Parts: sequence; C-alpha cells; structure tokens
Amino acid sequence: MKILVLNCGSSSLKYQLVDMETEAALARGLVERIGIENSRLVHETDAGKVEMNEDIPNHQVAVQLAIDALISPEYGVISDVKEISAAGHRVVHGGENFSEAVIIDGEVKKAIAECSTLAPLHNPANLVGIEACERILDVKQVAVFDTAFHQTMPDKAFMYALPYGLYEKYKIRRYGFHGTSHKYVAARAAALLGRPLDELKLISCHLGNGASVCAIDKGLSVDTSMGLTPLEGLIMGTRAGDMDPAAVTFIMEKERLSPGGMEGLLNKTSGVLGISGLSSDFRDLEAARNEGNEMADLAIKMYCYRVAKYIGAYAAAMNGVDGIIFTAGVGENGSMVRREICEYLGFLGVSLDEEKNAKRGVEIDASAEGARVRALVIPTNEELTIARETLALVK
Amino acid sequence: MKILVLNCGSSSLKYQLVDMETEAALARGLVERIGIENSRLVHETDAGKVEMNEDIPNHQVAVQLAIDALISPEYGVISDVKEISAAGHRVVHGGENFSEAVIIDGEVKKAIAECSTLAPLHNPANLVGIEACERILDVKQVAVFDTAFHQTMPDKAFMYALPYGLYEKYKIRRYGFHGTSHKYVAARAAALLGRPLDELKLISCHLGNGASVCAIDKGLSVDTSMGLTPLEGLIMGTRAGDMDPAAVTFIMEKERLSPGGMEGLLNKTSGVLGISGLSSDFRDLEAARNEGNEMADLAIKMYCYRVAKYIGAYAAAMNGVDGIIFTAGVGENGSMVRREICEYLGFLGVSLDEEKNAKRGVEIDASAEGARVRALVIPTNEELTIARETLALVK
Repeated sequence: MKILVLNCGSSSLKYQLVDMETEAALARGLVERIGIENSRLVHETDAGKVEMNEDIPNHQVAVQLAIDALISPEYGVISDVKEISAAGHRVVHGGENFSEAVIIDGEVKKAIAECSTLAPLHNPANLVGIEACERILDVKQVAVFDTAFHQTMPDKAFMYALPYGLYEKYKIRRYGFHGTSHKYVAARAAALLGRPLDELKLISCHLGNGASVCAIDKGLSVDTSMGLTPLEGLIMGTRAGDMDPAAVTFIMEKERLSPGGMEGLLNKTSGVLGISGLSSDFRDLEAARNEGNEMADLAIKMYCYRVAKYIGAYAAAMNGVDGIIFTAGVGENGSMVRREICEYLGFLGVSLDEEKNAKRGVEIDASAEGARVRALVIPTNEELTIARETLALVK
Repeated sequence: MKILVLNCGSSSLKYQLVDMETEAALARGLVERIGIENSRLVHETDAGKVEMNEDIPNHQVAVQLAIDALISPEYGVISDVKEISAAGHRVVHGGENFSEAVIIDGEVKKAIAECSTLAPLHNPANLVGIEACERILDVKQVAVFDTAFHQTMPDKAFMYALPYGLYEKYKIRRYGFHGTSHKYVAARAAALLGRPLDELKLISCHLGNGASVCAIDKGLSVDTSMGLTPLEGLIMGTRAGDMDPAAVTFIMEKERLSPGGMEGLLNKTSGVLGISGLSSDFRDLEAARNEGNEMADLAIKMYCYRVAKYIGAYAAAMNGVDGIIFTAGVGENGSMVRREICEYLGFLGVSLDEEKNAKRGVEIDASAEGARVRALVIPTNEELTIARETLALVK
C-alpha cells in the first residue's frame, strides 16, 4: 500500500509517496510559488532529482503536476495513479475539535474552515490542497492535525490568564503545534531507551526554522511552548517567541503599527535574524560567530538560553525528566547548539558525550555514560507519521 | 539618625520613618486619593492608628500632611522636622542609567524624567514626590530604583528577540522590577542559611499583588520575570503575565482595542481576577476554592504552575539552585500556594515540612530535614532597604 502525504502552504505544496510495507519514501517533492510567477516543481527519488519550471496557477494544477511526476515513465515511481491508496494531509490547526487524525468529509472540512480565524495563513491553504486532491484522486483522505497531540494538555497549561470570556468567545488558549513531530520522536525515544513510553517523562525540542518544546508525560503532551499561534515560546529563525505582552503595544504605539503590521514584525523580522541582523540560518550564524561577529554570538546565546529555560520549566511541569530529545534541522544537525543548551542542564543530570554529540542527523543517545537524564538526537519524520495515521484510518 | 522613606504613586503616597539605630519603623502612613475627592491620610505608630479625611489637592500637600503627622504632639513620633536626616524615594524605573541608589540632583531628576516613557504611570509620580519633598525638607534625598538590582543581568537574559534597532531606538529590553525586595530577601536568605551570599544560587519569588521571580547567582540578579514593564512573567492579581504575543494583536483586532485599551485589559482585568471572575485576592480565591468554586481552583492552579515553571527555568539559568525564597503578601502568608508550588519541585530536591510551612508571615526555613534545596519564607522589607541605601549615601 502506498500513501500520498501532502503539506500545502499558501503558495507551496510538499508531497511524499510512502510505501507502507517498507515505510520508505519512494519519492518526495516540493512545488513552490504557486500562483506567483517563476513557479517550479522539484521532484526527487532514489534515482535523482528533476526540476521543472512551469506556470502553476493554483493548487489543483500543483497536485496534478505532483501526480504526473509520480507516474512519469521517466522519473516516476509508480505506473498508475491507482497505486495511490490514500492521501494524508497535514492540517495546521484543528482547534479544540480534533485530538486525533480523521477521515475527511464535509463536516471535517467545515471544522477546518472554522479554525481559519486561528490560523489564517495555514488552514485555508490546507483546505485548498484537500479539495484539489478530491478532484484528482478517488481515494480516502485523512487530516492529521499539528495541534491534535497537544489536546491532552491540562487546563492549567493551556489557559492564558486573560478574562475568561475571551476563551469562551474566541477560544483564545494555547494549542501548540509540531504535534506530529513531538509524538513521533517521543515514540522513537522510548525505543532508543528500551523503556515503555508510558513510564517516561520526556522533553522534546523541535528546533527547526519554527521551533517548539513539548513536555511529554507517559506519552501525552502536558505542555508546549507554542500557543494560540506558532509565534509563542522559543526564539526562532525570524519569530520573536516570548516577550513582555506590553512590549507589543509599546512598539505598536511608537512605530504606529496596526495589529497586522505588528504580527509581521514579530513573525518575519525578529528571532535570530532580528537580533543578528544577519541571517535566520544557524549555519550562517555559527560561521559568523566563529569569525568574531558579536551579534551572531548574542543571537545563538539567546537562542540556547531560551531552550534551556524551557527544559527547566518543563522538568518542573512534570516534576522530573528522563530524557531530552533534539530534533528537526537545528536539533538534528547542530552539535554546538545541543552542547550549549546542555551546559545549563548539569543540575538535572544531563551530561553529553562529546564524540557522540559531534554526529549529525543520526538517531543517537548522545549522553555520557551514567548520565541520569539522557540527551537524545532523533531525526523527525512527520511525513511517515502522517502516512501511518492515514493507514490506520483507511485500512 | 532618622530617615523618611517615601513611595509616591500617581494619586497616593506611602511613607515610613525609620530609626537607623534600631532599624525600626517609628511610624508609617498612607495618603490616598491625592487630587481626587475623599482624599485621606492613615497614620500608624506603635501607639495606634489615626485617620484624617482632608482635602489633599496635590503631592506637596500630602508630604506636608505626612510630616505634620510625624511631628504632631498628639500622634507624632518626633518633636521637630529637623530630626529627619534624609529622605529615600522609591523610584520605579531607572532604565539603563542606574545600577544603584544615587543622591538626587538635577541630572538625576532629568534621567528619571527621561525614563517616563518606559513607566508612564510611575516615574512622573515619583518625580512629583521628590520635588514636593525638596520644597519642604532641607535634607539630602536619595533615589532607590526598582530596576537597579537587575542591571547585572547578562544580555542573553535582558534582550528580546526583536529587531535589534528597536533596542537601540527605544531601549526595549527586560528591566525587571521589585529589585529592592529581591535584593533584601536574598541577603536574609544567606543569613538564614548561614552561608555567604556569594556562594549561593537563589530563586526569589516575590508574590504580592504584583509578582515576579528573580534568579540570584552569587548575590547578583541574572534573570527576572518582569520585563520592559511589570506586566510580563507571572500571573498576578489583575495582570496576565506571559502569553503568546500574537494573542495581543489577535484580541486587539477582534475587540477593536487601541494599544492603550489593550494595556488596560492586560493589566487591570486579567490575572487571577480575569480567570476566576471573582477576585484578585488570594484569601477570597482560597475560600471560594474550598467551597468548590472551579474557576477559583483553576486560577490558583494556573498561578502556582506558572511560578513552578519559572523556578525550573531559573534553576536551568544558573545550572542549579540552593534555595527558593517566598516573599510578599501571598509568598509570606500563603501556605497553600507555597505547598502547591513546591509539589512540582521534588525533582530539584525541594521538600516542605508541613508544620513549618503552616506558619504565616515569619522568617523560616520551611524545608523538611535533609532537603537538598531549601524553601525559605522571608518577609520582605523594601522600606528598610531604601532607608539603608539612603543612609549609606548620606552619612
């Protein structure tokens, strides 16, 4: 059985065709600049990579191109579209409606549309992708929500200290994101530690361009750093994360910004990019730091310090921790960042093995022998998790 | 030597006359509703309390009334105004200019005025009190800043992940408040533990109507939960503390609030009052919880959980902690709150002695025997600290 996994952004589409017997990705691709000029598709298989520059006016054309690539005699991996048994969609915001993946029907689409006020950039794009797929593929489709894993958070963790009426009226609360990734790496951590997930207290650090930390007690999310939106929490590539809420209104007044303008500032020009004035990419920042750039150094220090404080906070949330997981781009590849974070955590019993920690992008327990709390590097695989959850519902 | 300590709000004035030989407060008082109708002065000495309802049009009249009360043959404690040797003023915001108390002169007043953009409700009132005092008393005056103690924070702790230009242009950064209190209780903690302050890692929880946590490493503030303003951090009586910065703009859009309107919502109608819909006072909330009120229960749970997470975060910031200090109204008197917070902290080595913890408002190490990290209750004394810092500069 082969499952197509789709992740639609406002002007992009990521896809992957997963063979569920082997759980291997047969092909993966990215369509960029949908509806904008210079759109293109990059399609990759074990045989190599092809790039097509075409006019791609909308998501339906993008889905069709992706499927054409998958069945292409030249660089395809299947001979007929009928080999695709189901489609799994990443959906960013499921609000309070979805605590697990669901087969998509009219009601589900309506609920996804209703969550658009909470994720105006993401959910409409997710829906467009779902409907484009419906027209092209005659298979069951499943929605896998970024928020679903976090629906187990207790109210003390998901409520903000705002007038309660704002929660009732607009559902303003912490939702959390990256749930698919946190869930996947937690299960892998249990396997790597050789202990049952339901006996473990884990803190998962998903450090990609977006970044979040999750406290996972007995396999359940009990707290996470992203909130109503993916802005809260850690410092990210271009997102500010936590700050004095009064700094938001202060800046709006001084700079005469609208709420929308302020959101742009906080999401697109802040984070390590805003501090360093240099780059949102940690490879650039690390190189600059090594050349003595003080602003790059400050950005990295702030970034690691924030992660370390969240780990301490979540150890308190669970009254203990057994393992700390690093995943996603920076988490998997950033030996320096992992070391700098773990230097704060000796008091918990964290101790890195420098040689193991120097490895990049492989699943490894990077702890020194005898370390009371384990530091694990686990490459995430959100597409595989979406494929698995899709399979579970359609088989 | 006797020192007059003054704390001026926009329509209030608190004062205390401290005898520096005994460090005892000879008299203390509160003038309320200055410039508003029904203004009054409450003056208290060991002999008792008097209340005067008078027309108090401005701070100069208020200061004069306070001094009249102090030298009153009937309920005064000194016979001549000349017995007042100096005046110490609490000043809320010293910006980046003041890392310690200073004798007030024209330059200092100018610097306090310049910080008014950062504390528009407080600094102008502090200045009015200083100038009223200048006209009435012919003594040296000292400014003791709420922010000064926190000026030792490293940049990784005081910078926000915003575009760096906003720091350069407006000095937007974490300042922290309650510095006088955190400093005082840290010194008391060292005495109580019988260890030098410069060997200790302490976390001070000032839990009053305003509330903040401070990480104190070797006697120096290295991080604190309040930020640009006293809104950030913990959940307070009516203040929200931390939240998704995007929740600020989201609410402003939905409720069509101006930046000023939003600040009002976050500062005055949020916190435990906003959650519970009941009260900002923990005595009310505790009583309501005991009667089964779920919203009061939620508010208390959220409050304690937030404090516990900050303690965990600051243990990471210092890579360890020796003692946790509880102070101010709720911290000194709230046995239940202390217990609920410490229940999260077993992993650090915190363990309460229930009998000792049941005590209220006294200085005590409330830890169980052998607890690795000590839980201390220390009544704060900001007025005495202001008096001491004033004495040190004028003697």
